[in-house]
Amino acid sequence: MLNHRRDLMYGDIRLFSGTSCEPLSQKIADYIGIPLCGRKIIEFANENLFIQLAGSVRGQDCYVIQSTSRPVHRNLMEMLILIQTLRLDSAARITAVLPYMCYARSDKKDQPRVPITARLVADMIEVAGADRYIIVDLHAGQIQGFFNIPGDALTAYHRMISNLIELKKDMFDPVVLSTDLGFAKRARNIAEKLHVPLAFIEKRRLKNDSKAEALTVIGDVQNHDVILVDDEIDTGGSMVNAINLAKKLGARDIYVNFVHPVFSANAAERLAEAPAKLYITTDTIEIPEKSRNLLGDRLMILSISELLGEVIHRANAGISVGMMFNE
Amino acid sequence: MLNHRRDLMYGDIRLFSGTSCEPLSQKIADYIGIPLCGRKIIEFANENLFIQLAGSVRGQDCYVIQSTSRPVHRNLMEMLILIQTLRLDSAARITAVLPYMCYARSDKKDQPRVPITARLVADMIEVAGADRYIIVDLHAGQIQGFFNIPGDALTAYHRMISNLIELKKDMFDPVVLSTDLGFAKRARNIAEKLHVPLAFIEKRRLKNDSKAEALTVIGDVQNHDVILVDDEIDTGGSMVNAINLAKKLGARDIYVNFVHPVFSANAAERLAEAPAKLYITTDTIEIPEKSRNLLGDRLMILSISELLGEVIHRANAGISVGMMFNE
Amino acid sequence: MLNHRRDLMYGDIRLFSGTSCEPLSQKIADYIGIPLCGRKIIEFANENLFIQLAGSVRGQDCYVIQSTSRPVHRNLMEMLILIQTLRLDSAARITAVLPYMCYARSDKKDQPRVPITARLVADMIEVAGADRYIIVDLHAGQIQGFFNIPGDALTAYHRMISNLIELKKDMFDPVVLSTDLGFAKRARNIAEKLHVPLAFIEKRRLKNDSKAEALTVIGDVQNHDVILVDDEIDTGGSMVNAINLAKKLGARDIYVNFVHPVFSANAAERLAEAPAKLYITTDTIEIPEKSRNLLGDRLMILSISELLGEVIHRANAGISVGMMFNE
Amino acid sequence: MLNHRRDLMYGDIRLFSGTSCEPLSQKIADYIGIPLCGRKIIEFANENLFIQLAGSVRGQDCYVIQSTSRPVHRNLMEMLILIQTLRLDSAARITAVLPYMCYARSDKKDQPRVPITARLVADMIEVAGADRYIIVDLHAGQIQGFFNIPGDALTAYHRMISNLIELKKDMFDPVVLSTDLGFAKRARNIAEKLHVPLAFIEKRRLKNDSKAEALTVIGDVQNHDVILVDDEIDTGGSMVNAINLAKKLGARDIYVNFVHPVFSANAAERLAEAPAKLYITTDTIEIPEKSRNLLGDRLMILSISELLGEVIHRANAGISVGMMFNE
Amino acid sequence: MLNHRRDLMYGDIRLFSGTSCEPLSQKIADYIGIPLCGRKIIEFANENLFIQLAGSVRGQDCYVIQSTSRPVHRNLMEMLILIQTLRLDSAARITAVLPYMCYARSDKKDQPRVPITARLVADMIEVAGADRYIIVDLHAGQIQGFFNIPGDALTAYHRMISNLIELKKDMFDPVVLSTDLGFAKRARNIAEKLHVPLAFIEKRRLKNDSKAEALTVIGDVQNHDVILVDDEIDTGGSMVNAINLAKKLGARDIYVNFVHPVFSANAAERLAEAPAKLYITTDTIEIPEKSRNLLGDRLMILSISELLGEVIHRANAGISVGMMFNE
Amino acid sequence: MLNHRRDLMYGDIRLFSGTSCEPLSQKIADYIGIPLCGRKIIEFANENLFIQLAGSVRGQDCYVIQSTSRPVHRNLMEMLILIQTLRLDSAARITAVLPYMCYARSDKKDQPRVPITARLVADMIEVAGADRYIIVDLHAGQIQGFFNIPGDALTAYHRMISNLIELKKDMFDPVVLSTDLGFAKRARNIAEKLHVPLAFIEKRRLKNDSKAEALTVIGDVQNHDVILVDDEIDTGGSMVNAINLAKKLGARDIYVNFVHPVFSANAAERLAEAPAKLYITTDTIEIPEKSRNLLGDRLMILSISELLGEVIHRANAGISVGMMFNE
Repeated sequence: MLNHRRDLMYGDIRLFSGTSCEPLSQKIADYIGIPLCGRKIIEFANENLFIQLAGSVRGQDCYVIQSTSRPVHRNLMEMLILIQTLRLDSAARITAVLPYMCYARSDKKDQPRVPITARLVADMIEVAGADRYIIVDLHAGQIQGFFNIPGDALTAYHRMISNLIELKKDMFDPVVLSTDLGFAKRARNIAEKLHVPLAFIEKRRLKNDSKAEALTVIGDVQNHDVILVDDEIDTGGSMVNAINLAKKLGARDIYVNFVHPVFSANAAERLAEAPAKLYITTDTIEIPEKSRNLLGDRLMILSISELLGEVIHRANAGISVGMMFNE
Repeated sequence: MLNHRRDLMYGDIRLFSGTSCEPLSQKIADYIGIPLCGRKIIEFANENLFIQLAGSVRGQDCYVIQSTSRPVHRNLMEMLILIQTLRLDSAARITAVLPYMCYARSDKKDQPRVPITARLVADMIEVAGADRYIIVDLHAGQIQGFFNIPGDALTAYHRMISNLIELKKDMFDPVVLSTDLGFAKRARNIAEKLHVPLAFIEKRRLKNDSKAEALTVIGDVQNHDVILVDDEIDTGGSMVNAINLAKKLGARDIYVNFVHPVFSANAAERLAEAPAKLYITTDTIEIPEKSRNLLGDRLMILSISELLGEVIHRANAGISVGMMFNE
Repeated sequence: MLNHRRDLMYGDIRLFSGTSCEPLSQKIADYIGIPLCGRKIIEFANENLFIQLAGSVRGQDCYVIQSTSRPVHRNLMEMLILIQTLRLDSAARITAVLPYMCYARSDKKDQPRVPITARLVADMIEVAGADRYIIVDLHAGQIQGFFNIPGDALTAYHRMISNLIELKKDMFDPVVLSTDLGFAKRARNIAEKLHVPLAFIEKRRLKNDSKAEALTVIGDVQNHDVILVDDEIDTGGSMVNAINLAKKLGARDIYVNFVHPVFSANAAERLAEAPAKLYITTDTIEIPEKSRNLLGDRLMILSISELLGEVIHRANAGISVGMMFNE
Repeated sequence: MLNHRRDLMYGDIRLFSGTSCEPLSQKIADYIGIPLCGRKIIEFANENLFIQLAGSVRGQDCYVIQSTSRPVHRNLMEMLILIQTLRLDSAARITAVLPYMCYARSDKKDQPRVPITARLVADMIEVAGADRYIIVDLHAGQIQGFFNIPGDALTAYHRMISNLIELKKDMFDPVVLSTDLGFAKRARNIAEKLHVPLAFIEKRRLKNDSKAEALTVIGDVQNHDVILVDDEIDTGGSMVNAINLAKKLGARDIYVNFVHPVFSANAAERLAEAPAKLYITTDTIEIPEKSRNLLGDRLMILSISELLGEVIHRANAGISVGMMFNE
Repeated sequence: MLNHRRDLMYGDIRLFSGTSCEPLSQKIADYIGIPLCGRKIIEFANENLFIQLAGSVRGQDCYVIQSTSRPVHRNLMEMLILIQTLRLDSAARITAVLPYMCYARSDKKDQPRVPITARLVADMIEVAGADRYIIVDLHAGQIQGFFNIPGDALTAYHRMISNLIELKKDMFDPVVLSTDLGFAKRARNIAEKLHVPLAFIEKRRLKNDSKAEALTVIGDVQNHDVILVDDEIDTGGSMVNAINLAKKLGARDIYVNFVHPVFSANAAERLAEAPAKLYITTDTIEIPEKSRNLLGDRLMILSISELLGEVIHRANAGISVGMMFNE
Repeated sequence: MLNHRRDLMYGDIRLFSGTSCEPLSQKIADYIGIPLCGRKIIEFANENLFIQLAGSVRGQDCYVIQSTSRPVHRNLMEMLILIQTLRLDSAARITAVLPYMCYARSDKKDQPRVPITARLVADMIEVAGADRYIIVDLHAGQIQGFFNIPGDALTAYHRMISNLIELKKDMFDPVVLSTDLGFAKRARNIAEKLHVPLAFIEKRRLKNDSKAEALTVIGDVQNHDVILVDDEIDTGGSMVNAINLAKKLGARDIYVNFVHPVFSANAAERLAEAPAKLYITTDTIEIPEKSRNLLGDRLMILSISELLGEVIHRANAGISVGMMFNE
C-alpha cells in the first residue's frame, strides 16, 4: 500500500478492469493497495454487451483498464461502454488506460483513400466520455496528438533497458539490430543507453510490383551477440526473418526485445522454432498459456503493472509523473 | 433505372456496402440503377481492419449500407472506418444506412449504473463523420433524438401491413396479439389498419426475486387466427412461448410478424419446432442459409430494398420522403 | 438537517428556485437544511427578464429548480438565464432540476416534417451551461439519451405505489387500468407491485380521417375498484373519458393516479365533475389554489420534495442515488 | 419578380414566417417573387407549440423570419422549433432572420452576477441548427461576435437617412440630438451624413443611491429643428423626457427617429401626448393597430422588406451584399 | 502573504508569466505571497517557440499572465502554447490572464468583408485549453460575450478615479473631456464619480472621401482644468490633437488618463512634446525605459498588480470578486 | 487554362495569397488560369493586422495560400484572420493551403511538460474556420491525424525523384545517405526508387549530459557520389556536418536534397562554404534573393506550383487527387 499520498483532488481511485487484462489489472490494484471495482459484463445471445457497475462512482476518479487486443472490436466496445457507464453515473474523472492500443499502425494516409483509424479510435474514446488517457508504447509518439484530451504516453523501454543492462553482462560484444527502419530512432536510443553499436535491416522490394522482398543488413553483426528490437510482434514473420538473416550473417546469440506480444496467427510456433536465445516482452497483452508453454524458458515477461500503478497513483494525487523518469 | 431525377445537389450517389449485407446492398443498387462502389476490406492477422476505396469520392453523395448484426462489433467498426475513410477523402455528404441498429434496446437507464449504449452508438456514428442516417424500425422511435444529425427513421410496417391485408383474406376472424407491452401502441396501429381486434400478452414475475414468469393473455384469442407482432426475434424464446400460449388458449392459425430476424443462438430451430403457420420478416438482416432451410416455406421474407433504394434516391435528389407514405 | 455527509467535493450546495415552484423549492431546502439562495428576477416592460444573483457562487455546487409548466416559455427561458448566470459567475457545477419537463411528448418524428422538441430543450439546457440534470418522470425514459450530460432521471412511482399499497387495504378487488397503450409497460409494473390484475383502454379512430375515437377496455373492470394510471393529466379529456367508460362497464370506486398535474384549460372543473373517488398526484407542478379548491378532499398531493432533497444531497456528497431505490 | 439570378447554389429559397411578423414576411416574399411556405403552428392547451411543415425542404435554402418581439419567449421558441424542424427535414441551409432581436441590451456583464443573455440567445439559435443569421440594427454591433455562425448584420439607417435628407428640405437649421451617450457614435454618423450639428443629452443621477436623474443637453438646440435619434423606443419614457427637455430649451419642430418600435406598456399613449412633430420608425416589429391609430399621421413607417428581400435573394444567389451599400 | 484563505478547491495557485510582462507578474506573485513558476521559453533559429515547465502542474489551478502587446503575434502564440502545455500536463484549471488584449478594436464588422479578430483571439484562447479568462479594460464590454468560457472582465477605472479624486483637490474647476464618442458613456461615468461637467470632442470628415478631419468640442473647456480620458494611447495622434485643441480653446492644465499605454511608433515623443501636465496610465503594458525617460515626472503609472493579485486569489479560493467593487 | 473541368460543385475557385508566398501563389493562379483575388492587408502601428477582401466570396470555393515561414507568428495569424474573414463573408468552402507548416517538429511529447504545438496549430486553423487543408511534406505523416477536417497531405518527393533520376545519369555509383534516423524510412523509399544503396548517419552523444555528438556513417560512402536527403534545412548545421563527414570518408560529388528551404540564421552562408556540388530544394518557402545569390548555380529550385495548382483544381472539380500519383 502506497503511503505517500497527498490530499485527494479527484475523489478516490476506482479501478475497473475490462475482460481483456484482468491479471494485469489485479497486479495494478495490488500495487496501489486497493481492490478492483465490481462490474457485471454480460454478453447477450445477440452479442450485445451489457454492463452494470456494482457500486456508485459519483465524484470518484475512475480508471478503465483494457488492452484492445483480440477480440479487438469486442474489447474496444467493452471499454467504450464502461467509460460511458461511468460518465452517466457522474464519475468526477475518467481515464482510459490502454496497455495496448489497437489500430495504432493506421496512423496516417500513406496511400490514397485509406482511413486514419488510430484517430478514429481516439475520437471514440473521447466521445464515450474519457477525460484522460494512459497508453503504453504507442506505435508512433505522434498519436498523442490525435487526442484532444490530455494523457500519459508511457513507455516500457526504461524497464526493458534496465533488463538489457543486466543481461549485457553475459553478452559477447553485443550490437543492437533494428528490424524496421521506422524504428531506427528508438533503436539508436537503446544502443546509446547500452553503449553498443547499431545496425539496421533494410527491406527492399525485388521488383516493382512483386511482393518478394530482399533483406540486407546495413552495419555489422558478424561475431556479435545481437539485440533485436521492435515495438511489437504480430505474426512474427518479419522477426523470424530477421533472426534467420542475422544467424546467416554470423551472429552469435540473439536476444529479441519487443513491448507488445500481439502474437497473431501461429506467431508463437514460429518464434519457438527460430534460433533466438531469448524473447523479452511485457504483459501489455495477456499471452495465452499455450503460447507461453511453447516458448517456455526462452520467454521473459517484464511486468508493466508497477509502472501503471505508480502513474495512476500519481495522476490521482497530483504528483509529477515526469519525475519518475528523471535519471 | 429511375428516370424522374432533378438536378443533383450533392454530387452523384455513391453506394458502399459493408460486408454484413451485400445481397441487400446489391438489390438497392439495382433499384437505383447504379453499381455498388468498389472497396477493399481486409482483416489482418491481428483482427485490425483495413479499408481502401477503389475510386475517389470527392464531392459525391455517399451511402454506407451496413447492418450491425453479427459479428456485431466488427460490423459496427467496419461501418465507422468506412465513414471516416469517405470523410477523409472529402466526400460531400455521408449517410450511414443501418437496416438494423445494434444496441437499440439499451436506450435508457432503467436501473442504476447502466449505460445507454444506443446513444453511444449514435455518438460513434457522428464522430466518425456521418452527416445523416437512415435506419429501419428502431426499437424505440425516441432513438431518433439520440442523433444530433438529421436522418430518416423508416419503417417496414407499411410493407408488412400490405402483406397482412393480402393474407387476411384467407384468415379466420383474426386478432392481433402483441407479445410485449412495450410494443402495445404499435400493435394497436397494426390492428387498426387491419380492422381487427387486439390482445396482449402480459409477463409477470411469479415471485419477487425469481426469474420464473407467468404469461397471461389480456383480451381474446380463442377460435381466432392470431397475428403475432413484435419488432424482432432474438433467441425466439418469448415468441415461442407466445405461440404456445396462444395455441393453448385455443387459437387457430398463427402468423408471426417481425421486422428484424436477429435469430441468435438456436432461434431458427426453436421457431421451426413451434406450431406457427407462417413467419413473416424482412431482409434487414441477412438470414443464414441454414436457418432459411430449417423454416422452409413457412418463412416469408419481405424485402426492404425498394424502400431503401427509393429513400436514398429521394435524399440525393431533394425529393420528399414523407410523401412516399401519404396514403 | 442531514448529518451523514462526507467531505464535500464540489463546494457547498447552492439552491436557486425559479419562479415556477417556490413552495416546492422551499421544502427541498428545508429537507436539506439550508436556505434558498437569493436572486433578483425582474421582468422588464418589454418582457425581457433580468436576473442577478444575491451572492457569489464561485466554486460552488449549484442547483436550479424550475418546473417548466405554465407560463412554459417564460419559465424555460428563466431557467436557462439562471443557468448561464451561474456559469458566468464561475460556479463549479450546475444542475438543472426539472420536476416537470415541458415538450417531453415531442420526443420522436412520428409523422414527416415535425420537430423533436424534447431534444431541442435538452440541447438548450446544455448550451446554457448545465453540467447535470435531475428530472422527475420523463414521458419516455429514452429522453435521458437526448442529453449529452449525465443526470438523474427520477420517478415518483415508488412514492405513489407505497401510497397505493396503503390505500389498497380498503379497496375491493382492485384492478390497474391504463388509459394509454404507450403507458402499458409502466401500468404492468404498478400492477405487479400491487399484485393486482391489469387492463387497458384502447382508443381507435372510428373512420380513417375522422377525429371520433371509440374506446374499449381490454381486460376486466366490472365489479372491481379501478386504479387508473397515467403520467400526467393535461386537459383531462382522456382521463374523464376513461373514468366514465370504467363506470359504464361496472367499475366500483375509481382511484386516479398521475404524476404531473398539468391541468390545462378547465381540467380541474372536468375532473371535479367526473365520478372518481380520489385524484392522487404530486407537487412536480404547483396546482393553483382555485383548482385545489374545486377538487377539495378528493385531491391527494404526494410531495416529491424529500426525493429531490435527498438526491441533491447525495449528488453533492458523492453518495449513491441508486441505493435509495434498492428494496 | 427578380430576374438577375445566377445558378442557384443552395437549392431554392424557402421562406417561412413565424407568427410574429406575417405582414412583413409576405412583403419580403412579394419582393422576391415567391410564396411563403406553408407550415402549421399549433399551440396546445398546455402551451406547448407544435409545428409541421406543409412540404419537404430537403436540400433547399431555408429562411425563418421571426421578430422576437412580444410575446418574446413564445416567439423565440417558435423560431427555434421551426429551425430544428427544418434541420431534421434535411434542409441544405437554414438562415434565422430576426428583424428585431430580443435581449440585445443584455450584452455584457456591467455589474457582478448578471447574465449576457444576448449570447445565450445566439447560442440557442445555433444549437437549434441555424447555419446563418440576418439581423437588423443590433443594439451593439459587437453582438455579431456572439455568433459562431456567419451572418448579415443589416441596418435601416441607410433607409432612415435617405428619408431624413428628404425631410430636411423643409426643416429649419436642424440639429441631431442623441438621447443616449451609448448611441453617440451612431448619432455622429447621422449628423455627418446630413451635414448638421450634433448635441447630446446627458443623464446623471442626482445623488448616489437615488433613481432621480438630471438631464442636461451638451451642445445647442435653441431655435433649431431637432432630429432625435435612438435605436428603439421601449416604454418611451426616455424619449418623451428628451422631447420635453428639447422643447424647454427652445427647440422648434422635433422629428423622432428610431428603428425598433418596441412600444412596451403605454408607450404609444405617451408618445401621442408628447410635442413631437413626427415619429419615424420601421416595420421590424409589427405595431398594433391601436397604437398606429393613436399616433395617426405623426407616425411614419419605413419598410425594411425590400432590404431583407434583396439580402435574402443575394445570400441565396451568392451575390455580394456589401455592394448594396457602396455609395 | 494573504492569510484569509478558505480550503482550496482547485489545487494551489500556479502563476506562469509570459515574457511580455515579467515585472507585473512578479508584483502579482508578491501580492499573493508565492513565487512565479519556472518555465523555459526558447526561441529557435526558425522563430518557433519551445516551452517546458520546470515542474508538474497536475491538479493545480494555473494562471498564465501575458500582455498581448508588442511583439503581438509572438506574445499571443507564447500564451497559447503555455496554455496547451499546462492542459497536456493535466492542470486542473487554466486561466488566461490578459492585462491587455490585442485586436480588441476589431470587434465587429462595420464594413463589408472584414474580420472580427477579437472573436478569433477568444476562440484561439479557448481552443488552446483555457477554462477561464481575466482581462483588464476591454475596448468594448461586449467582448466578454465573445468567450464561451466564464471570466472576470476587470477595470482599472476604480483605481484611476480614486487617483483623480485625490488630484482634483489641486485642480481648477475641472471638466472631463472625452476624445472619442465611442467612449462617451464611460466618460460620463467618470465625470459623475468626480462630480464635474462633461464635454466631448467630435471628429468629422471634412469632405466625403477625404481623410482630413475637423475637430470640435461639444461642451465647454475654457478656463477649466481638463481631464482627458480614453481607454488607450496607440500612436498618440488623436490624444495630442485633443490636447492641442483643448489648449487652443482656452483650457488650463490638462490631465491625460488612459488605461493601456500601447505607445506605438513615436507616441512617447509626441506626448512628451504636447502641453499636457500629467499622463496617468497603468502597467497593463510594460512601458520601455526609453519612453519612461522621455515623459519623466509627467508620467504617473498606477499599478494593477494588487487588483489582479486579489482577483486571482479570490478566483482560487472561491470568494466573490464582485464584492471587491461594492462601494 | 485548364479545360477538362466538370460542373463545379462548390462555386468557383477563389485564390487568396498571404504575404509570405506571393510569387508561388501567382504561379498557382497562372497554372489554373485565374487571377489571384484582391485583398487589403494592413499592419497598424500597434502591429495588429487588418484585412479586407476586395470582393464578395459568398458561396465560393476559397483557398488561402500561406507559407508559415518567417515571420512565423505574423504569417500564421495573417492566415487565420484571412480564413475567418472568408468564413464571416459566407464562403461555401475554405481550404488552408500551407506549402510549409510551422511547428511541425513539435509533434509529440518526447519529454515531460512540453507542448504538442503542431496540434495547436491544427486546432487554430480549424477554429478559424477552415473546412479543408492542403499541406506539403509534413515533418511526420501522422500530423494528418491532428486535423479533424479532411485534407490533402502532398509530397514533393515525386518531383524530386524525377529530378534525381535525370541527374543520376551523370553520377558515379551513387548512394543515398540519410542525415537523420527519423528520416530513414523515407530515405529507403528514395533509394529504392533510384535503385541505389542506402546509408545512414548516426548521431550519438559522447557522454551523458554533454552536447557533443559523435557522427558515424552506417553503410558505405567511399568512392560513391552521395545523395544526401532530409525534409528541410533549418540552420544548416546538421547538413554541413553530414557533407563534411561524407567528404572525410571518401565520398565523391555530393547532391543535397531537401523540400523546405527554411534557411534560418546564416544557413545560406554555411551551405555556400560547404563542399556540396548541388543543393536541390523547392519553393515551399520563398528564398531571399541574398541567399539565392550566395548559392548561385549550385542552387536548384523545383517548383511545387503545378502540383498545388492541379490539386486545387481537382479538389474544386471533384476529381481524384490520388490518381495523380498512380505510376
